[in-house]
Amino acid sequence: MRVAVGGNLMDARTVSMEEEVIKLIDQRLLPGEFVIFEARDYREAGFAITEMVVRGAPAIGATAAYAMAQAQMQGKDLEEVARHLRSTRPTGHDLFYAIELMLQAFREGKDLAKLAEEYAEDSVRRCRAIGRHGLELVQDGSRVLTHCNAGALATVDYGTALAPIRAAKESGREVFVFVDETRPRLQGARLTAWELAQEGIEHAIIADNAAGLLMARGEVDLVIVGADRVASNGDVANKIGTYEKAVLAKENGIPFYVAAPVSTFDFSILSGAEIPIEERNEQEIRQVGGELIAPEKSRVRNPAFDVTPVRYIAGFITEVGILKSDELSVLKEEAERSKGK
Amino acid sequence: MRVAVGGNLMDARTVSMEEEVIKLIDQRLLPGEFVIFEARDYREAGFAITEMVVRGAPAIGATAAYAMAQAQMQGKDLEEVARHLRSTRPTGHDLFYAIELMLQAFREGKDLAKLAEEYAEDSVRRCRAIGRHGLELVQDGSRVLTHCNAGALATVDYGTALAPIRAAKESGREVFVFVDETRPRLQGARLTAWELAQEGIEHAIIADNAAGLLMARGEVDLVIVGADRVASNGDVANKIGTYEKAVLAKENGIPFYVAAPVSTFDFSILSGAEIPIEERNEQEIRQVGGELIAPEKSRVRNPAFDVTPVRYIAGFITEVGILKSDELSVLKEEAERSKGK
Repeated sequence: MRVAVGGNLMDARTVSMEEEVIKLIDQRLLPGEFVIFEARDYREAGFAITEMVVRGAPAIGATAAYAMAQAQMQGKDLEEVARHLRSTRPTGHDLFYAIELMLQAFREGKDLAKLAEEYAEDSVRRCRAIGRHGLELVQDGSRVLTHCNAGALATVDYGTALAPIRAAKESGREVFVFVDETRPRLQGARLTAWELAQEGIEHAIIADNAAGLLMARGEVDLVIVGADRVASNGDVANKIGTYEKAVLAKENGIPFYVAAPVSTFDFSILSGAEIPIEERNEQEIRQVGGELIAPEKSRVRNPAFDVTPVRYIAGFITEVGILKSDELSVLKEEAERSKGK
Repeated sequence: MRVAVGGNLMDARTVSMEEEVIKLIDQRLLPGEFVIFEARDYREAGFAITEMVVRGAPAIGATAAYAMAQAQMQGKDLEEVARHLRSTRPTGHDLFYAIELMLQAFREGKDLAKLAEEYAEDSVRRCRAIGRHGLELVQDGSRVLTHCNAGALATVDYGTALAPIRAAKESGREVFVFVDETRPRLQGARLTAWELAQEGIEHAIIADNAAGLLMARGEVDLVIVGADRVASNGDVANKIGTYEKAVLAKENGIPFYVAAPVSTFDFSILSGAEIPIEERNEQEIRQVGGELIAPEKSRVRNPAFDVTPVRYIAGFITEVGILKSDELSVLKEEAERSKGK
């Protein structure tokens, strides 16, 4: 992705590895500071995932792939490394997908460094394909609402939900993006707005509460979000609040699309009811920046994801095309092909 | 309301007047500090309304009533004072209701100080009646979700949406409140949680985004919110995000009630389409506490209210009873009686 740092334009990836060091754009510090976090072993990579230095299901998957490769170079016990990485965050599927892929390759005696690099390259290609396929949904003048960040920062590069928007911009279409700020961690205001500003894509940040009003007023043509895990039936776990937007979109006759690559689809579960929902710590709600915004003795509930039932979803923008929920078996074959290669 | 300040328990009102000074709990500083803001003339009272030292439609109404009385004592031009106060905030109805009431009394040569005091006392009585009527909705063990603050701090005392909850607690029922934090100004996390903590009512603060998940999981029995203005047909303007909660409640089969006194009902308009929606400044979204959370060049949209169409509303908890939308004419008579007295 294009990043202007201190007046210099550079091309950056969210996740990469140089020699034995995993390099991550530190997403805790954006948009204020652009800093690269270096993970020198799998424990540091695990810390980066848990603490959300890196977040977004595909970006977490690539980080885990690199961490497995790094662990092989460092002569670690890869079964133990896999166990540790699996324990970092429960909801997103790419983490488990990438670990499984690498573990299987390791058992077959393969060189994981090469494979992790391919995994990352492949991830970028898949995101670009999502952009190409999703382009047909983003007309000239479209006003798209998105939730959280499913952009380049949530992947290795280019993004999932933001991929069709980037593609529309690249093909010369005017597009306007309403960015849900996405409490509690404000990935919309902090990350999506930053990405769109870097690319010169017009946008406005809104409180999550304002999306309904804008939809009811006819100011939103289309909703595109990413996903953390998609079940076989098409139920989608994504950032908390996604379900609210999906219900409101349906109520207002606005198509609601989910953009995700094959690695986010979990064909081992039938429905969203089987997806574990992470509850994060109370301070994410109680405190913003350094400021305490709530009484200290008040309890807090902080589920980080919700599940959107498939009936609210118009379609899935994937690397193999835009699919309806009854066409997801095509992706299952793609998953098996990816794993077998 | 009961307020513990520095270990001392005191009984406080959100709005009151002593001699010629209007005293307001400064809601910009809660829950961190409990400070009384003093408005010494109508311009200071207007500032307090615009800057949200005082907020909540009924509390703003009482502040305006006192400001008119104060202006009479100070020999001001009351038509000019009324014009100035009307310009402070556009959406809530009580402001206009109270100004009109006082202006009419002034034209009839009445003493506004006595009348303003009666207005405030009457407001508390109406809130207590809302509590008594609403009590039937709050069963022992009920889990109620509320949005924004429609408690004692939004009125002179006791509250509207929180009145049935206070009444349930007083009658010995267990009640649990989910408090939407209510971005951008966080009146839920800052004010509602503070009020509930003062009263020892069990509650948990949630991101606005989490309400849908909790509803879908069956963790919410009932939603009660306040109102800033209700149109003749029952459409409700209330804090931004209310519409989202109403749609989600309906989708999940959860009754959604609006609690408001007669002063909030605007029988001069037919539907919510006629209610002006205030857009507030960008900094409310861009900054939390002192921290800038979004890129400075990103645009922001910040509508402060939305309109919930009457079809999502199970009923109105008022001082004359729980009414369906086709029974609101009872309140119209009550409004005429109040104005005539």
